[in-house]
Amino acid sequence: MKKYCFGVDVGGTTVKIGLFDCEGNILEKWEIPTRTEDSGAGILPDIAQALLKKMAEKGLKKEEMAGVGIGTPGPVDRDGIVHEAVNLGWGVFNLRERMEELCGMPVRAGNDANVAALGEMWKGGGRGYKNLVLVTLGTGVGGGIIVNGEILTGAVGAGGEIGHIHIQDEEVDACNCGNHGCLEQYASATGVVRLAGHILEETQEESILRGGQVTAKAVFDAVKAGDRVAIRIAETFGEYLGKGLAAVAGVVNPEAFVIGGGVSKAGDILFSFIEKNYRNYVFHGSRDAKFVLATLGNDAGICGAAKLILE
Amino acid sequence: MKKYCFGVDVGGTTVKIGLFDCEGNILEKWEIPTRTEDSGAGILPDIAQALLKKMAEKGLKKEEMAGVGIGTPGPVDRDGIVHEAVNLGWGVFNLRERMEELCGMPVRAGNDANVAALGEMWKGGGRGYKNLVLVTLGTGVGGGIIVNGEILTGAVGAGGEIGHIHIQDEEVDACNCGNHGCLEQYASATGVVRLAGHILEETQEESILRGGQVTAKAVFDAVKAGDRVAIRIAETFGEYLGKGLAAVAGVVNPEAFVIGGGVSKAGDILFSFIEKNYRNYVFHGSRDAKFVLATLGNDAGICGAAKLILE
Repeated sequence: MKKYCFGVDVGGTTVKIGLFDCEGNILEKWEIPTRTEDSGAGILPDIAQALLKKMAEKGLKKEEMAGVGIGTPGPVDRDGIVHEAVNLGWGVFNLRERMEELCGMPVRAGNDANVAALGEMWKGGGRGYKNLVLVTLGTGVGGGIIVNGEILTGAVGAGGEIGHIHIQDEEVDACNCGNHGCLEQYASATGVVRLAGHILEETQEESILRGGQVTAKAVFDAVKAGDRVAIRIAETFGEYLGKGLAAVAGVVNPEAFVIGGGVSKAGDILFSFIEKNYRNYVFHGSRDAKFVLATLGNDAGICGAAKLILE
Repeated sequence: MKKYCFGVDVGGTTVKIGLFDCEGNILEKWEIPTRTEDSGAGILPDIAQALLKKMAEKGLKKEEMAGVGIGTPGPVDRDGIVHEAVNLGWGVFNLRERMEELCGMPVRAGNDANVAALGEMWKGGGRGYKNLVLVTLGTGVGGGIIVNGEILTGAVGAGGEIGHIHIQDEEVDACNCGNHGCLEQYASATGVVRLAGHILEETQEESILRGGQVTAKAVFDAVKAGDRVAIRIAETFGEYLGKGLAAVAGVVNPEAFVIGGGVSKAGDILFSFIEKNYRNYVFHGSRDAKFVLATLGNDAGICGAAKLILE
């Protein structure tokens, strides 16, 4: 009888780990450091050791464990093969097999953004939907797509990489991916700051954003205070993001978009800027998609990883 | 023991029907007219009658039939519910249930473009791929997306409606869908003719396209003959289509794009115009997607419909 599982979320600096029961309740969660030295060779052994130690501490037997779900940066295909994860130092290898050898339990693996989308569907803002898109507005724009309750992985695990949809032909600055005019350049936290810089430079108008440090949070705080320049920045952000998400909807026709990441801390006010543009550009079959906020925060990854192994 | 099935492709003027064995060989195919009068009330009874008549003629028993797959215009969800099909006169109703009552066999239904994609994966240009996008360049731009071997249906069956991805902010003409600047306005047969009109008007340059009737076929024939104005038209077409398909790939990360529809009769020469733009705009995880021609032509729909019921 399987009673428990582990959900693991591998990040560039820490690995988040959760012990779950099979209903998805978090019984315990903790972190270990991510050792990226030596091409990340120690990361999986460190995780396996942490899991086995926790089982010993709690007196859990392998027979009671459904297994281990792992979310990790970079493309991961359906067989659990990682296709490079630059910030961990990893090349191409079968993460699932390697981890099964190390911990002696069944393992399933997925891309971290995709796994987080599964988590938000299961326990978060996307509860009740089986077709959704998680849009993570953080340093970059991440995406995770759930189709009929399952992660859309794609050919090599690059499904849901919506931050790199081309959205602007005139862009002179390069995106981190090397292309020009990616959605991420306008709709991420960094993107909002870039937009703010351009718009503050273009106009002489007074703004509470002048003088202080411009962050995405500062921009949306200023929007809430009625600052007209900040509102213009938010309008531009919403135009790009609404247009980008309309393209995503033309492809996957989701029931809902779940908006997460640092920028989403601005709250519901975001939707007013995104939705009107979305509905303007989208094909009518997807016009009624709902916009909701992600609710799991940093736990989305471990929750989705647990769900991955419980499926 | 199931030995046979029917694949049905409902079009605006004719219904194509195929009798298949369970390995997917077409044993017989024929057409009946689509009677759209009276809100299309006669369409399904006509089809049921045609199927039952064929079974009587061939001496096939219901026990030998795996059932009936149907592809039809408009959004069709996973339960077989049609969400309006304007050109057939249909509103919202459960096609699967209705057809099962009429013919007494199991039925599965899907959107025609999505079903055609399944057909091309099974027996056509997409053979060997489990993640592909069928792009049908006809009067409009249709799309059908296969993810891990299955149709991506979406919330209400509007998955794969890639012809209505917004691609051009400056467009003054409206698309059939009511929006402005949809991919279909530049990459369909009609779209190529529109582009040709604009480009022939902008320039005084000699072209074999001047004087004659400009069709998509005439444009690509002129490209093959080295006509410089035609090449400029094809470049513009390729820029839009390459950019649009790059956005699609950012969402679903396919192994291959299968290009079908009337415009695809131009053959491999299309790829030179599409691929360079695609690779320029796409996220690197999808840069290696293959471009291939659809091979089933008008049989894609009945083949995919048969596959739908055999799954």
